[in-house]
Amino acid sequence: MQKGKVSIQFEKPPVIAGMACVAGKKEGQGPLGSGIDVIEQEDMCGEDNWEAAESALQKKAANLVMKKCGAEPKDIRYLFGGDLLGQLIATSFGVASLEIPLFGLYGACSTMGEAMTLGAMTVQAGYADQVLSMASSHFATAEKQFRFPLAYGNQRPFSATWTVTGCGAVVIKKEGHGVAKITGVTVGRIVDFGLKDSMNMGAAMAPAAVCTIRQNFEDFGIDETYYDRIITGDLGQVGKRIVLDLLKEEGYDISSCYMDCGIEIFDKDKQDTHAGGSGCGCSAVTLCAMILPKIQSGEWKRVLFLPTGALLSTVSFNEGQSIPGIAHGVMIESI
Amino acid sequence: MQKGKVSIQFEKPPVIAGMACVAGKKEGQGPLGSGIDVIEQEDMCGEDNWEAAESALQKKAANLVMKKCGAEPKDIRYLFGGDLLGQLIATSFGVASLEIPLFGLYGACSTMGEAMTLGAMTVQAGYADQVLSMASSHFATAEKQFRFPLAYGNQRPFSATWTVTGCGAVVIKKEGHGVAKITGVTVGRIVDFGLKDSMNMGAAMAPAAVCTIRQNFEDFGIDETYYDRIITGDLGQVGKRIVLDLLKEEGYDISSCYMDCGIEIFDKDKQDTHAGGSGCGCSAVTLCAMILPKIQSGEWKRVLFLPTGALLSTVSFNEGQSIPGIAHGVMIESI
Repeated sequence: MQKGKVSIQFEKPPVIAGMACVAGKKEGQGPLGSGIDVIEQEDMCGEDNWEAAESALQKKAANLVMKKCGAEPKDIRYLFGGDLLGQLIATSFGVASLEIPLFGLYGACSTMGEAMTLGAMTVQAGYADQVLSMASSHFATAEKQFRFPLAYGNQRPFSATWTVTGCGAVVIKKEGHGVAKITGVTVGRIVDFGLKDSMNMGAAMAPAAVCTIRQNFEDFGIDETYYDRIITGDLGQVGKRIVLDLLKEEGYDISSCYMDCGIEIFDKDKQDTHAGGSGCGCSAVTLCAMILPKIQSGEWKRVLFLPTGALLSTVSFNEGQSIPGIAHGVMIESI
Repeated sequence: MQKGKVSIQFEKPPVIAGMACVAGKKEGQGPLGSGIDVIEQEDMCGEDNWEAAESALQKKAANLVMKKCGAEPKDIRYLFGGDLLGQLIATSFGVASLEIPLFGLYGACSTMGEAMTLGAMTVQAGYADQVLSMASSHFATAEKQFRFPLAYGNQRPFSATWTVTGCGAVVIKKEGHGVAKITGVTVGRIVDFGLKDSMNMGAAMAPAAVCTIRQNFEDFGIDETYYDRIITGDLGQVGKRIVLDLLKEEGYDISSCYMDCGIEIFDKDKQDTHAGGSGCGCSAVTLCAMILPKIQSGEWKRVLFLPTGALLSTVSFNEGQSIPGIAHGVMIESI
């Protein structure tokens, strides 16, 4: 069960029973548009403010994935979820009406990895038959909170990413039919290389991704050849290069199987998103709109899904602190 | 293992191997002072800002509880922790140097309950031999973030609470010697009665506490007579009365065994803390300074420890949203 230093191998792998994602118009116009279940045509989602709009994404994704799995809220024993906002208000106001017992999580943009890790651990141990794991972000709530007012129209450097408006949700169950299984997890630790540029979060998070990938290889006695794909969360163009370079220094060349959700979700040339997508919703939506469908179809057999988070706040940033990173690895394989 | 609708009963109860708490000068002068391991004489803890001070509390508490348990950071497989600050910066910057794989949690002031619940689930399932569960708050970081600048010297209504400066940490292990055992947990769900007064959080959280207490009774087929004490986190004087009243309406009179950490940690008459203490650190410090010692000494045999959280942020509050509450119940019994 415990595997190596920080990983867990599931003897009877929990099953991802189904997935659903809801995203914004821009995400719908991107390369993954056809895989997104619901594309909101306006970013306010019919609500009064951006935060309520993000909550609406959560509620919609949760209800949709349950519907797809033929489950009611009462059939879901626990919900593992989070978002980027201070005090997790997108989640709290989004899922409250479901009345499912809640574990609120914060791992910045690694939250989907944390939610799936704890969800899989919970069902494999027999604590629940079915759980819901989910994470969201919204361009407007994140910009407002972390950067500048939208109306300010500030310029962004090319290393900056574009926060994804979207929510991805999966139902994880102990056994039975489903789209994929979770065979193991590698829990991330905080890695801080001292970077301080909040407009280059890919660089700040890349060392954490490298740490978790290497740890996953060591704990399971494998290397990159074990996987069809190793997919980080939202490192973008800059972070991707750093991951490849740092791992090469350690003797691993993952270039043939490496992808990043932030690069997949937007069209760099046509969508003006610079280094790529980011936010909890970036990896969560890419998981549901592309990764799981490709595993389900048999195109990929084994994927290391690795959402990456930058553990800063505007307060820590303005006080001159660095940007620590974390990445949680989830091994997803075909059934 | 699953017990009733939302609870878990541990067949081989995980053991709380040890506890440690670090708190501020005001907390040290309160009724629990003699039980607090380290009392900081100045609230900046030698750091440059309040957030770094709260991180220092976390680091000190984590190192102290490991020392008490004869453990090194490498012996702790996972850390479950959180705080009240946006993006959990007190935790991220507090525990980074320990290099323990981290599950970041946000349950507002219920975080210690969430951390112990997930910690106990993890060790009982065999995913780890030892884990660290902890939570912190700091009067100055919380005031700055949620209320007014300290220098403003605003008046507080009598229903307001005083955020505890402190951190409590426990090591939970699978078996062996220790100070107490965790026999079960009841995971809380969000309960929102529509209250909007952020200066009366006790009232906002009380319905969530009632929900979890009643659910705990139902799931385990017990009532208040099972426990020596039922102890909520930080409802204070106002919330306490509401809990007693609401439960009485449902046929439970818990008045003879009911306590609240927020009421225990400060001397209402001498310390000008109005309704009592609050913050993640309130229940975490009271657990380590009073509850666990009394269980260890045999004075109490069975306690339902029930940290309570108010899931608001300044953004949700200013947008006119209500204050949802959540409470996680941890059944702690003598070994």
